[in-house]
Amino acid sequence: MRATTIHAPGDIRLSDVPEPSIKAPTDAIVKVVAGCICGSDLWPYRGANDIEAGSTIGHECVGVVAEVGSEVQAFREGDFVVVPFVHCDNTCAHCRNGAQSACLEQGWTESGQAEYSHVTHADGSLVKTDGMPDDSLVPSLLALSDVMATGWHAAVSAGVTKGSTAVVVGDGAVGLCGVLAARELGAERIIAMSRHQPRQELARRFGATDIVAERGEEGGARVKDLTDGIGADAVLECVGTDESMQTAFALARPGSMVGFVGVPHGVELPVRRMFSKNVGLAGGVAPVRRYLPELLDLVTSGAIEPGLVFDLSLPLDEVAEGYRAMDERRAIKVLLTP
Amino acid sequence: MRATTIHAPGDIRLSDVPEPSIKAPTDAIVKVVAGCICGSDLWPYRGANDIEAGSTIGHECVGVVAEVGSEVQAFREGDFVVVPFVHCDNTCAHCRNGAQSACLEQGWTESGQAEYSHVTHADGSLVKTDGMPDDSLVPSLLALSDVMATGWHAAVSAGVTKGSTAVVVGDGAVGLCGVLAARELGAERIIAMSRHQPRQELARRFGATDIVAERGEEGGARVKDLTDGIGADAVLECVGTDESMQTAFALARPGSMVGFVGVPHGVELPVRRMFSKNVGLAGGVAPVRRYLPELLDLVTSGAIEPGLVFDLSLPLDEVAEGYRAMDERRAIKVLLTP
Repeated sequence: MRATTIHAPGDIRLSDVPEPSIKAPTDAIVKVVAGCICGSDLWPYRGANDIEAGSTIGHECVGVVAEVGSEVQAFREGDFVVVPFVHCDNTCAHCRNGAQSACLEQGWTESGQAEYSHVTHADGSLVKTDGMPDDSLVPSLLALSDVMATGWHAAVSAGVTKGSTAVVVGDGAVGLCGVLAARELGAERIIAMSRHQPRQELARRFGATDIVAERGEEGGARVKDLTDGIGADAVLECVGTDESMQTAFALARPGSMVGFVGVPHGVELPVRRMFSKNVGLAGGVAPVRRYLPELLDLVTSGAIEPGLVFDLSLPLDEVAEGYRAMDERRAIKVLLTP
Repeated sequence: MRATTIHAPGDIRLSDVPEPSIKAPTDAIVKVVAGCICGSDLWPYRGANDIEAGSTIGHECVGVVAEVGSEVQAFREGDFVVVPFVHCDNTCAHCRNGAQSACLEQGWTESGQAEYSHVTHADGSLVKTDGMPDDSLVPSLLALSDVMATGWHAAVSAGVTKGSTAVVVGDGAVGLCGVLAARELGAERIIAMSRHQPRQELARRFGATDIVAERGEEGGARVKDLTDGIGADAVLECVGTDESMQTAFALARPGSMVGFVGVPHGVELPVRRMFSKNVGLAGGVAPVRRYLPELLDLVTSGAIEPGLVFDLSLPLDEVAEGYRAMDERRAIKVLLTP
């Protein structure tokens, strides 16, 4: 099958690789209807992560079940499913605790930017739509496989509550989904930090009440002004750099939480500041499966449209251009159709 | 008046210093009935913190109001009061958010190991007992000025809930109070890490169901065994060293929180582990005033007896011996009477 592979920083190819197959009786194979490129795929693309040359890349997709193992009960050929990027049995102690991303049977989507994708523990991992969804819903369903669930996890981890003031650090697709999540969780005021006009517009559409274009100390001062010098009730850190993390802690009011979902790169947490200000940190790899039932309802009912983060759609053949567009910030997030 | 002063590492003296006086109309002066030595007083005593030679030390006390400023409404001469080590107006935005230790009008008890202590924002800071308490209650009331409220903050920050499994790292007075707090908050299983027999006994009396005497990796393996390999639902970090923090994170199950209240010294937070395991961190300087009404009820009703942490009582004149006893771990916590 055709699948996206990475060979070196900046070297993305569409390659011919073996089709995945059922290995365990709890597996499923999904024929990909749509996949996409994640901000975290840019870490190896930019040389910030180690690369195993020739390995597949891409962990987000939706599609139709093509084959199931003999023990799979809840899914069958033809079901339209959302594939969370972390697979789980949804029954182990960690899953029962809501930490599905740390499932004792944890698996990962290894070829989302491809024709087929292999899913472990299909019964625990997948959710399906009620019949075949309308094409117009596909981008928003695809967003649930990672980006929207990750933004949601940031908002939940930051403790966004009804009537609260939230700040979102990062205007990538995850940050924008964080804005949408904060709105759904009832934040009254949502301050999005963004310098890019198209992203500012989408942030407003998703529920941002204020945009702060300044960065670093200046941005911090601006947010402090907007929060009467007190700071925010909840801060969503959706980047993963040391700079964005320090900004997040500078903006969080005493007694609040920073919810972090950007894979940390070079981050040194300000433990003394956290202690003296009583600002906590929670989050991590999003337990997508935990949130999927709720998010699926929100998407199918039309309450949220996270698929708007896809501002560029390309055929899978042009995946390399998709990476370039995201790397150069010409696109917020790129949808790929095999 | 006689007050404890520190002059260099290991050099504690009882000195003659000016009596504190009303400086603002919201102040109060408290005649100290009992003060005590805090684990955090040992940081400068051991040379780990800077010392301003000759400055007073000690921030925990209970006593009787000796004088109030003209604007103090809720207290008058003769009231028996608990003095939280951080003073607050209890009305500012931070206080309303439950972060009284970051009050915009924050003040600190500067002479708890002395004859008199100065309190700022008395109406916001102090709580009083219903009449003069029995002598037998004084140690437990004294514990509310810091140590018990700090243990409570660890348990609250770690998210201890009914039926949960909690681990307490640190068998100092704060850790022991953390055990007591976890019990009151409904933890079903409380694992106390302690190598010292008298502390183990008090931990059991306070509600510990299991004692782990091993430290470091061995201790971690033992706790993992006790929690079926899953880890704890809540971990209370009550020391503040890098070793204790790493132990805390190693024992916390995915999706849980570490509650930290030990002043961090040389701590480097394991941000990648926190991210991959979804283990958060919250806590800091305890907002004592927030918890005081509830804790005062628990003490006066006899539900908790945190004063048991005081296993040595000395006259104030012997304060230097009190520091030595705590430094050498001959005493868990030392009560001082002027």
